[in-house]
Amino acid sequence: MDPYLLNAPWVNTLRLVLEVAATVAFALSGVMAAARKRLDAVGVCVVAFVAAFGGGTLRDLLLDQRPFFWIRHTEFVWGILALCIGAMLFMRQRHFEPTERAMLLPDAIGLGLFAAVGVDIATAIGMPPIISVMMGVTTGVFGGVLRDVLCNEVPQAFSDHRPYALCAFAGGWADVALRQVQAPDWAPLVACVVLTAGLRGLAVWRNWELPAWRV
Amino acid sequence: MDPYLLNAPWVNTLRLVLEVAATVAFALSGVMAAARKRLDAVGVCVVAFVAAFGGGTLRDLLLDQRPFFWIRHTEFVWGILALCIGAMLFMRQRHFEPTERAMLLPDAIGLGLFAAVGVDIATAIGMPPIISVMMGVTTGVFGGVLRDVLCNEVPQAFSDHRPYALCAFAGGWADVALRQVQAPDWAPLVACVVLTAGLRGLAVWRNWELPAWRV
Amino acid sequence: MDPYLLNAPWVNTLRLVLEVAATVAFALSGVMAAARKRLDAVGVCVVAFVAAFGGGTLRDLLLDQRPFFWIRHTEFVWGILALCIGAMLFMRQRHFEPTERAMLLPDAIGLGLFAAVGVDIATAIGMPPIISVMMGVTTGVFGGVLRDVLCNEVPQAFSDHRPYALCAFAGGWADVALRQVQAPDWAPLVACVVLTAGLRGLAVWRNWELPAWRV
Repeated sequence: MDPYLLNAPWVNTLRLVLEVAATVAFALSGVMAAARKRLDAVGVCVVAFVAAFGGGTLRDLLLDQRPFFWIRHTEFVWGILALCIGAMLFMRQRHFEPTERAMLLPDAIGLGLFAAVGVDIATAIGMPPIISVMMGVTTGVFGGVLRDVLCNEVPQAFSDHRPYALCAFAGGWADVALRQVQAPDWAPLVACVVLTAGLRGLAVWRNWELPAWRV
Repeated sequence: MDPYLLNAPWVNTLRLVLEVAATVAFALSGVMAAARKRLDAVGVCVVAFVAAFGGGTLRDLLLDQRPFFWIRHTEFVWGILALCIGAMLFMRQRHFEPTERAMLLPDAIGLGLFAAVGVDIATAIGMPPIISVMMGVTTGVFGGVLRDVLCNEVPQAFSDHRPYALCAFAGGWADVALRQVQAPDWAPLVACVVLTAGLRGLAVWRNWELPAWRV
Repeated sequence: MDPYLLNAPWVNTLRLVLEVAATVAFALSGVMAAARKRLDAVGVCVVAFVAAFGGGTLRDLLLDQRPFFWIRHTEFVWGILALCIGAMLFMRQRHFEPTERAMLLPDAIGLGLFAAVGVDIATAIGMPPIISVMMGVTTGVFGGVLRDVLCNEVPQAFSDHRPYALCAFAGGWADVALRQVQAPDWAPLVACVVLTAGLRGLAVWRNWELPAWRV
């Protein structure tokens, strides 16, 4: 890929904007999960942090990339902290029943955004396509998996028989394919986000289910 | 150790063959565990992948070795994917009750193989003996531990009071000891595999149990 | 900071002594947790090891610091092994009901010690203050978190509504603040240990509780 385009400022800006939006959506999923388990304030903050940054941090650990996003941008750590304190105060003020439904849209967009960022980083350091796609899926899904492991639950992404990681898998392949055909620089990111979030939206709207085990 | 021998092609080939055989056995243990928990297709694939590569990946993370085995050999990622889809189709066709007994032999061999590979890699980068043995045990056992953590179970390796990690521990020490006495290049690997798998076989056959807690 | 002071032998000796004392306290918490879950001998050793070294190892993985403390000092690995075997023999001899109360003091001191070591290492490689404090808290708390994850429990540090990680958080900020004002070299470590352990002691003695969720 043309190095000029990779270094163009708007590409980096776009990546940053994508990561902010996705981070907030995922952190809130951590707050909800912690609240359902009645964790204390420390648990809420840690689980929110892990839900937001766990996928990307695991990806960077596996790919040996440093420094992590949240070490380069410590304002995100402060942001998550503020978000958690705000959410806890708000939940104390009024009885707030966190509904799964309200989280579906930001979560679907976040999944697509994170997958695109993960594919992008893995491709940039020369990973083969299947590994880039796996890193995209890992970025999108493992924040939630680590969140559920810390909450002592079977990870929702592995057990609810709804397409979730599979949407990111499809989006990741679209991203990788567009890179192969020398599409313009913005195309792979946009395709990955739109396809992943679109498929996830369809899956929820049409009630798609993964095949179940025979009992 | 003589660098010529370390670089001899058959040593690398032997290591590769060992890792293939062990990987299939461990991936199947992941499929079984996921099926018992009624995970969906995504859960089956991730748990199988973690059971197969989790121990070696954790070892390489701790020893700071890159790239990982499955990034160097992406055909393994495709292989695990094919294995999982095949196993899920097969289990849908006929009611397949995965018995623990059928998995014992490949699992015992896989344990020995993984331990030998782990000791080999740690020794090659100059780790002290106790750390090399720990890395062998980690390679053999932590795939299963991470599998059980993802399935929200107490790890079987820590709780079933049957010698499992201990067999790999003994095999690892045999491996390290033979290296110290300048045994021929094939001897440590073979000794580790035979001793680990042999002890595990004996333990299962003779129903050895680790001492239990007084209630 | 003056490089002479950083390299002064007594600073390194002090850090080593701190890590020994904290390690024993945390390993014992792992033995207790494993015993409560009736894990076998392998489980006891692994959980004790993870409780003792898990926080520091996670910190070093995140900060990309190698070799780990327990690889540099393998005598610690032997020490934990001896401690576990000793504890298991002792518990078989007499019915030993591990009380939470007896563990509170060494645990509080260990928390302060680990937090100080974590802040120290992160600061030494130039991490910003908030990250250094997070690494201190991680060092102190995540050994216990990983211990509870392996034992298939909701981490106690996230769910018992008692200030624990928060004490280390306060101590870590004291450490960082004293470094900013060019206090003498021993001051940040001592302040972090005293403030963390003191707050934890106060919290236990006065029965402080974190605010609970409205039901």
